[in-house]
Amino acid sequence: MSANNSFSYEQLFARNAAEPAPLGMPRRGRYDFAVAYPDPETLPLDELVEGLRQALAEEGRDLAIYHHRQGYPPLREYVANKLARDRDIHVSPDDIILGDGSSQPIHMIVETLVDPGDVLLTEDFVYSGTLNTMRRFRADIRGVPCDEQGMLPDALEAAIRQARAEGKRVKFIYTVPTFQNPQGWTMPLERRQAMVELAQRYDVPILEDDCYVDLRYEGSDVPSLYALDGTGRVMYVASFSKIIAPGMRLGYMTAPRELLQRALAAKSGGAVNTFAAFAVHRFATGQLHSHIEVINDVQRRKRDAMLAALEEHFGDGVTWSRPQGGLYIWVRLPEQADLVSIRDRVLETEDVGYVPGTAFAADGVSGRNYMRLCFGYNTPEEIQEGIARLAAACRREGMLAD
Amino acid sequence: MSANNSFSYEQLFARNAAEPAPLGMPRRGRYDFAVAYPDPETLPLDELVEGLRQALAEEGRDLAIYHHRQGYPPLREYVANKLARDRDIHVSPDDIILGDGSSQPIHMIVETLVDPGDVLLTEDFVYSGTLNTMRRFRADIRGVPCDEQGMLPDALEAAIRQARAEGKRVKFIYTVPTFQNPQGWTMPLERRQAMVELAQRYDVPILEDDCYVDLRYEGSDVPSLYALDGTGRVMYVASFSKIIAPGMRLGYMTAPRELLQRALAAKSGGAVNTFAAFAVHRFATGQLHSHIEVINDVQRRKRDAMLAALEEHFGDGVTWSRPQGGLYIWVRLPEQADLVSIRDRVLETEDVGYVPGTAFAADGVSGRNYMRLCFGYNTPEEIQEGIARLAAACRREGMLAD
Repeated sequence: MSANNSFSYEQLFARNAAEPAPLGMPRRGRYDFAVAYPDPETLPLDELVEGLRQALAEEGRDLAIYHHRQGYPPLREYVANKLARDRDIHVSPDDIILGDGSSQPIHMIVETLVDPGDVLLTEDFVYSGTLNTMRRFRADIRGVPCDEQGMLPDALEAAIRQARAEGKRVKFIYTVPTFQNPQGWTMPLERRQAMVELAQRYDVPILEDDCYVDLRYEGSDVPSLYALDGTGRVMYVASFSKIIAPGMRLGYMTAPRELLQRALAAKSGGAVNTFAAFAVHRFATGQLHSHIEVINDVQRRKRDAMLAALEEHFGDGVTWSRPQGGLYIWVRLPEQADLVSIRDRVLETEDVGYVPGTAFAADGVSGRNYMRLCFGYNTPEEIQEGIARLAAACRREGMLAD
Repeated sequence: MSANNSFSYEQLFARNAAEPAPLGMPRRGRYDFAVAYPDPETLPLDELVEGLRQALAEEGRDLAIYHHRQGYPPLREYVANKLARDRDIHVSPDDIILGDGSSQPIHMIVETLVDPGDVLLTEDFVYSGTLNTMRRFRADIRGVPCDEQGMLPDALEAAIRQARAEGKRVKFIYTVPTFQNPQGWTMPLERRQAMVELAQRYDVPILEDDCYVDLRYEGSDVPSLYALDGTGRVMYVASFSKIIAPGMRLGYMTAPRELLQRALAAKSGGAVNTFAAFAVHRFATGQLHSHIEVINDVQRRKRDAMLAALEEHFGDGVTWSRPQGGLYIWVRLPEQADLVSIRDRVLETEDVGYVPGTAFAADGVSGRNYMRLCFGYNTPEEIQEGIARLAAACRREGMLAD
């Protein structure tokens, strides 16, 4: 029997229920600068399958078992080693929780710490997924102005003091300090030290989202906020999605045990997908390092292609970031340009997708004249074509008038 | 630098923050009747890897892409076909959301519908995972008395009326109507019709958790509550975990679109693990049906082994369920027995694990003289040994005195 849906759920929704999400698949452009896709050609598919086969032969029976709630222990050991080697973070595997991408650990942390009305401080433009989670928990999100080195420390301090003067609780600072999404900059050492100093002085912890740290094309790594702190005031999350494949959905977090245990209790489901964890573990222990070098090589060329195309097709009045790594270029059009209003039309007519800046605005409204362009998915030739079409569309729509 | 953890998160936890969960791995018994493990020997490992290899060869590039938020479309098509064929549920693939096991859809539904203090009606003893999620959202959970056919309709109606008389909102009825976990019974047609009639008369929707429906060893399927209703008052969840492997963590839900869209918005992360979805889809379309027959054959023998062993080793004063399917036997010891207090000792000395009934109690406290025994994991010989040891331990501890 088919449901005739004569019953309405409208009166039953929780006060905090999320706004309805559209069902069905959003249209993607051929020139898809809208999402965070790495290069499909570099996906290590054969290696992942081989890793899985190997792991199943050795441990297959364990697929039957609801694994350790924190996630497949050998992969947590791998993560612990990686954190120590790459980020000077020294924790045991039991201080790590594997999650469904990095978004699940972030959800767990927000759920654990945030009451409605609590203040969260973020970069003025920051990853939309986290903003949405924060909104679902009715946080009072306050964006802090940034320059090309990240949050302005004076502005951050003023924001903390302001919130407290209003009698509000500032629960944490959320930052993507390396190859920031969407703005592209990387906080240098001095800015990180300043942020950590503020966190310590005002007792406001930091949620450090390091999802892009491995995607470095030039320059040198900067120490993690976690390592610079050393007092337990930093909660750290990162992910394999950008360096293996988003479809794997494997991320992780580490934080002081006091926080970790409550976050773990807030985790829905049991262990993160063991099938994927097997494959990632075997692959990572053998080959991740050289794989990262390969993909970064590809990504560097794509970034350069996009920068060159922007230079060629957009003129005065338009500026953009020049990130040393990551997946995005953050483009600023003249003040009065409205990239929100023309987005669907550009997708329809030029087959070009982008994300308007408003999606990343902490205040939910700023950034109509900004767009985030991802160079991860298309080939350099497609990037060139797509940017040309995008510029033509912007010009046609009067976005570039001075 | 290592964290010296001089910072305390205690003052920052949200009012609703979950109680801390223990880190590290709980000890498992050799005779592990404590968790819901299917038989490890029947895991279709080679077939899963082959399915994955095939899918990757055909669609590997798509692993790069954050897939459809509702989950890999071909697998949703498969689920839609299965629901139509097996449960008389006729929905389109776009009416389905794939999740991280069935626990994620349940979490999404609870998050969407439940404000603190809202009443949820459940069987008096029911799946602990869902109870924990309900508690995290501070629901007022009220257990309804059951017999061997499920919730007593008069008691269910009285519970609805009572809650409303108190001025409370009854948000939904949660039921596991087939091979109920832990009690083992299956609601026959008349009881399902009575529950649906109450749902329609009082406008209280039902969350139907059908996770065990495929694990049938004898008897015939009973129509789903969803199919019996037809007015949109039933939200339906089920899972592949019990019929392929828990480590796959793939479940699904369907519900009227009004509810579905809000539940989707409450889903953390993007699409459920595509890697696993690929493998499950290829495997399921080819072989799931015959696989289920194979595993049910194995499970039937294990169930029979456990029933025989209970008969042999436990005497008067002890009763137990005789389920037609599923994974559990629900054992009742004399009233004064306290299976909670001896659980760790029995695990230590006899290497036997079980779950005391209190874990499943809607009221959180009842059921000290009950235990749930899973026959899914151990071999029939191990089951025989384990039950013998368990009975000996119970006798030694004075649990069986009249």
